[in-house]
Amino acid sequence: MDIFIEPIGRLINQFSKLPGVGKKTAQRYAYKIIGMSEGEAKEFAESIIYCKQRVRYCRVCGNFTENEVCDICRTRDKSTICVVKEPKDVIAMEKLHEYKGVYHVLHGVISPMDGVGPNDIRIKELLARIDESVSEVIMATNPDVEGEATAMYIARLIKPLGVTVTRLAHGIPVGGELEYTDEVTLSRALIERKQI
Amino acid sequence: MDIFIEPIGRLINQFSKLPGVGKKTAQRYAYKIIGMSEGEAKEFAESIIYCKQRVRYCRVCGNFTENEVCDICRTRDKSTICVVKEPKDVIAMEKLHEYKGVYHVLHGVISPMDGVGPNDIRIKELLARIDESVSEVIMATNPDVEGEATAMYIARLIKPLGVTVTRLAHGIPVGGELEYTDEVTLSRALIERKQI
Repeated sequence: MDIFIEPIGRLINQFSKLPGVGKKTAQRYAYKIIGMSEGEAKEFAESIIYCKQRVRYCRVCGNFTENEVCDICRTRDKSTICVVKEPKDVIAMEKLHEYKGVYHVLHGVISPMDGVGPNDIRIKELLARIDESVSEVIMATNPDVEGEATAMYIARLIKPLGVTVTRLAHGIPVGGELEYTDEVTLSRALIERKQI
Repeated sequence: MDIFIEPIGRLINQFSKLPGVGKKTAQRYAYKIIGMSEGEAKEFAESIIYCKQRVRYCRVCGNFTENEVCDICRTRDKSTICVVKEPKDVIAMEKLHEYKGVYHVLHGVISPMDGVGPNDIRIKELLARIDESVSEVIMATNPDVEGEATAMYIARLIKPLGVTVTRLAHGIPVGGELEYTDEVTLSRALIERKQI
């Protein structure tokens, strides 16, 4: 790295910490910063500090918030809880503008391969939230092996509490084609077929 | 963007300014920052400010430097000047560890389509550097239309000063295959064939 002068090398190292960013991309980013005005670079740097200082996790749902309890937990219908793996999944759901309930962010899924057990994600916090006011828990973890297993594990814990547990439907993506749909998805779509 | 709380939205906007970074990637970067420790985030932010404050352009060659004149200009053989488009091209050349001369960074190429004329890039600074101590100028602009045109334009200005002007060779990339070499390159490789 001694091809780069020290301040550039240092910035490239920092940018390389971002997900999916290699040395080459980090170098492009660093050059972009150098090409910025002093004010723009300062604004960039400050937005990092500001974001890191202001953002914390909602005490109730675990989503990002500036306050102790997030806006969603404070204002929305608490009878339905949608359980997701990460805060970005909340964003994906919120983009629909259809879901009116609250969320619970697990911050991970059970994955024995990676050494993540039930106690490493926010399952007990979820159980603590379930009382008579909650009528439905929607398991919206990803439809992969860990996501499914986590959904099943949590469902087994919650069902005895008398709460309906649902799972996002599997099937052919809208606009998709039968020919290009993988076999597992197609088989699920067949099993879960609906009368029209 | 009101799906994101303000500090996150602000950081996403900043990351979106980086080349090739869309909203989705910027969001991933922002989440990475939130996941960092306070110290790491601060180090990241500071490296931006530090880089921006320390790095400037060498008064002689236009490359990045921390001083008024860069290390390359101060220590290397000044009889050969390699002319490149951007500082990143200096890095590409330096990685060879073969070139012992100095550089001249144009900070762009002549491109009438983009409104960049000969006076918008560092051509007159190059001409000012050429005296009897300079024996060769290597034109190492990119082998695209603008790069070639810029090389030709500069060559015409320099040749009358009695300096040898050279251009990086075109041909089949080492390890490449004839079948997959584009026609223009292959035709150049044929024209510029060498006796073995």
